[in-house]
Amino acid sequence: MGKNKKFVEAITSMSEDFAKWYTDIVKKAELVDYSSVKGCMIIRPYGYAIWENIQKDLDGRLKATGHENVYMPIFIPESLLQKEKDHVEGFAPEVAWVTHGGTEELTEKLCVRPTSETLFCEHYAKIVQSYNDLPKLYNQWCSVVRWEKTTRPFLRTTEFLWQEGHTVHATPEEAQKETIDMLNVYADLCEQTLAIPVIKGQKTEKEKFAGASATYTIESLMHDGKALQSGTSHNFGDNFAKAFGIQYTDKNGTLQYVHQTSWGVTTRLIGAIIMVHGDDSGLVLPPRIAPIQVVIVPIAQHKEGVLDKANELKDKIAKVARVKLDDSDKMPGWKFNEYEMKGVPVRLEVGPKDIENNQVVLVRRDTREKAVVSMDELEEKLSALLEDIQKSLLEKARTLRDEKTYVAHNMEEFKETADNKSGFIKAMWCGSRECEEKIKEIAGTTSRCIPFEQEHIEDKCVCCGKEAKHMVYWGKAY
Amino acid sequence: MGKNKKFVEAITSMSEDFAKWYTDIVKKAELVDYSSVKGCMIIRPYGYAIWENIQKDLDGRLKATGHENVYMPIFIPESLLQKEKDHVEGFAPEVAWVTHGGTEELTEKLCVRPTSETLFCEHYAKIVQSYNDLPKLYNQWCSVVRWEKTTRPFLRTTEFLWQEGHTVHATPEEAQKETIDMLNVYADLCEQTLAIPVIKGQKTEKEKFAGASATYTIESLMHDGKALQSGTSHNFGDNFAKAFGIQYTDKNGTLQYVHQTSWGVTTRLIGAIIMVHGDDSGLVLPPRIAPIQVVIVPIAQHKEGVLDKANELKDKIAKVARVKLDDSDKMPGWKFNEYEMKGVPVRLEVGPKDIENNQVVLVRRDTREKAVVSMDELEEKLSALLEDIQKSLLEKARTLRDEKTYVAHNMEEFKETADNKSGFIKAMWCGSRECEEKIKEIAGTTSRCIPFEQEHIEDKCVCCGKEAKHMVYWGKAY
Repeated sequence: MGKNKKFVEAITSMSEDFAKWYTDIVKKAELVDYSSVKGCMIIRPYGYAIWENIQKDLDGRLKATGHENVYMPIFIPESLLQKEKDHVEGFAPEVAWVTHGGTEELTEKLCVRPTSETLFCEHYAKIVQSYNDLPKLYNQWCSVVRWEKTTRPFLRTTEFLWQEGHTVHATPEEAQKETIDMLNVYADLCEQTLAIPVIKGQKTEKEKFAGASATYTIESLMHDGKALQSGTSHNFGDNFAKAFGIQYTDKNGTLQYVHQTSWGVTTRLIGAIIMVHGDDSGLVLPPRIAPIQVVIVPIAQHKEGVLDKANELKDKIAKVARVKLDDSDKMPGWKFNEYEMKGVPVRLEVGPKDIENNQVVLVRRDTREKAVVSMDELEEKLSALLEDIQKSLLEKARTLRDEKTYVAHNMEEFKETADNKSGFIKAMWCGSRECEEKIKEIAGTTSRCIPFEQEHIEDKCVCCGKEAKHMVYWGKAY
Repeated sequence: MGKNKKFVEAITSMSEDFAKWYTDIVKKAELVDYSSVKGCMIIRPYGYAIWENIQKDLDGRLKATGHENVYMPIFIPESLLQKEKDHVEGFAPEVAWVTHGGTEELTEKLCVRPTSETLFCEHYAKIVQSYNDLPKLYNQWCSVVRWEKTTRPFLRTTEFLWQEGHTVHATPEEAQKETIDMLNVYADLCEQTLAIPVIKGQKTEKEKFAGASATYTIESLMHDGKALQSGTSHNFGDNFAKAFGIQYTDKNGTLQYVHQTSWGVTTRLIGAIIMVHGDDSGLVLPPRIAPIQVVIVPIAQHKEGVLDKANELKDKIAKVARVKLDDSDKMPGWKFNEYEMKGVPVRLEVGPKDIENNQVVLVRRDTREKAVVSMDELEEKLSALLEDIQKSLLEKARTLRDEKTYVAHNMEEFKETADNKSGFIKAMWCGSRECEEKIKEIAGTTSRCIPFEQEHIEDKCVCCGKEAKHMVYWGKAY
């Protein structure tokens, strides 16, 4: 058992050093590796398979709601990036600039896209003429680059993978509906598929996207009480339409500007999965996105009939779940640890005695509960077990989030909570940028969002005492 | 009918100007649009949907043969690119260089990946230690950038989408097997899915990939008689392994270099589909990758019951094919032209008289043959029709290719054929670079490949008259 022990000890415990625990998991579960490209990550097969499962789920949701995939160029000429004033101010300081092509210096430098609003706008200006051409509901899967000083795998990297939706509509109402609809699609993805509960709300003026008239967000809470912005949806109004001249002729023959949205989620969601569900033995994956949902570990596999039976079970299970049989010559205990580290939802043990009794042992990753199950009922029991794990991961995460959500009636309470607890703090706000900045100064927290589900805590702003406009979620964030 | 006519006349005919015909199709079928990013293309929804269907098919084939997807950084530091001598010589002149990140000048410039051998090698050097770690069969879907002077949508663009497989193996034999296996996967993809027949063979020394010890290719022939290199597979031997120090301990405890392969296909395949199957009315898509396989055009759709029946048929067909009902208020004739332009394999017409007779009219895009089919047999007949179209497109393309394949016994014959015909020329070759260059000088053709299926045409090289080593396919290429 020495080998097993060593394997487990190699992970820092969550309570000892959360950041180190996180980095240990991404390395040991073989999600990511580093390279000589500073700030960029290599997404290894197991990590990429999780992303593929997220993609497949979300892509289905996007197509079901009428969106079409496209591909825009990787580069944006400097002059194009500069067309919308706020947008260029927000992004220019953090882009990578291509100045040479082959051996020649370019006459105009190109940035590697940090986001593609400008490219979509230029295209929409060309292809939209009449109300018949609207809406256009486009989406793109790609990588983007933002020059980051400090990076962490999945959470903040110079390059990351994402999808960016960009839509144009005839009316402000349609654009607003799309913005909220897509936020809801993201919330459903998080809750139903990733088992991560989210708070839906609007970003303050200070925190909104460069060039947007309103930004909406889903905020989730990590195991350490820090918030993670998990997806955003922006309503641009006609800001970009005016900057890029995207106009259409309406039914009355009048020229109108389009109304526009954009929205995105990124590989950061994998970071959220790790930090919401993981434990001191490694990853815990929700079954819906687990690359392997069931791992079969044969016991005493050298004994006659064990591997045959394991293979037979594998073929059976393959009809209802993503299954892997590990028949390598490692010890069962070593395999137990490895697949716990990788967060495989269910382990199936089968040995000579089980075969004699026509049964197998199922061990769930989240609670480690064991159940002895008859081989005759296996598919049915397994399907139910996977469903149950999916559901209880969400419940557990919701309970944890609620436990770590505090209320502050005044600034003393706010500061005390921020100093001693980690989690969301709900408090009233007058709506001024001044108070927002002061709260950050005093308590080190930023506004996460003005939640759609408002609560009345006090009449007055927690900071200045003037009349409160909104209840806001505050927190420290990744 | 004025509107319809105009629509059709807008396409240049293939025989008049093939290059213009091609560009007209990519624009009118809404596959691609241009942007202010020179040399890059926007892949529009219809074009991207074709790529998604190709991806899905090929990704399935890659996973079925044990390959795993990963994601490598978009950038390659200059020093990393330089590690393999031939490779850097081949690619350095055509890469885009990032010299600034945000407001700072980089200490080492980064190129936007033109291909990712160097990144995979660096990673393999870290993760491969023992024979237990082999083989590693990785693949990546991404975009790459090569600074091109003259560009054409899909065929040659500064940025293009592709997959790149990179594998490491314990022995030369395994690497060679993988190289050929993947070439066969590509050939199957082309023939079974894209209905494009290919010649499989080896590239000459002159034409092989920068850094490879052998390059294999599938070559297809376009409607204008020009060849298109449609996919390549490279055996690197241990060239890269030595440059990057990728070593493993074998079963005897001896340190060995790995043997390596890489292989890729690109969005260029969409160009091949256009130029192999298209005609003067536009695209002709093989059913297996057609985003819409059947389009329903209702006739006299304002008449009672027509749209109801069309919708009912749509739901029925959706079970066996990708179907679209166009119930817009455009004239049927306009719709006919539009979906012909888009290459939709089957058009279904249904009007009041058809409904009365419990029948529909099916029109196939490739031959324009019409068939009246009973509604009771619709799914069955449609499935068979789609299969038949898929098969006959391949046969037609093969016939055309064979008709445009010539034999040259001597240089006079070679030159005369090259001057007056366009297509493949089969001729014997001594194996010298000198003759290869001379043939290009005299006839304007390059060696396409040394086909696996060799034929004996003459004993002597067509150029120098010395003893021939191989029969080679020559041609003018995209």
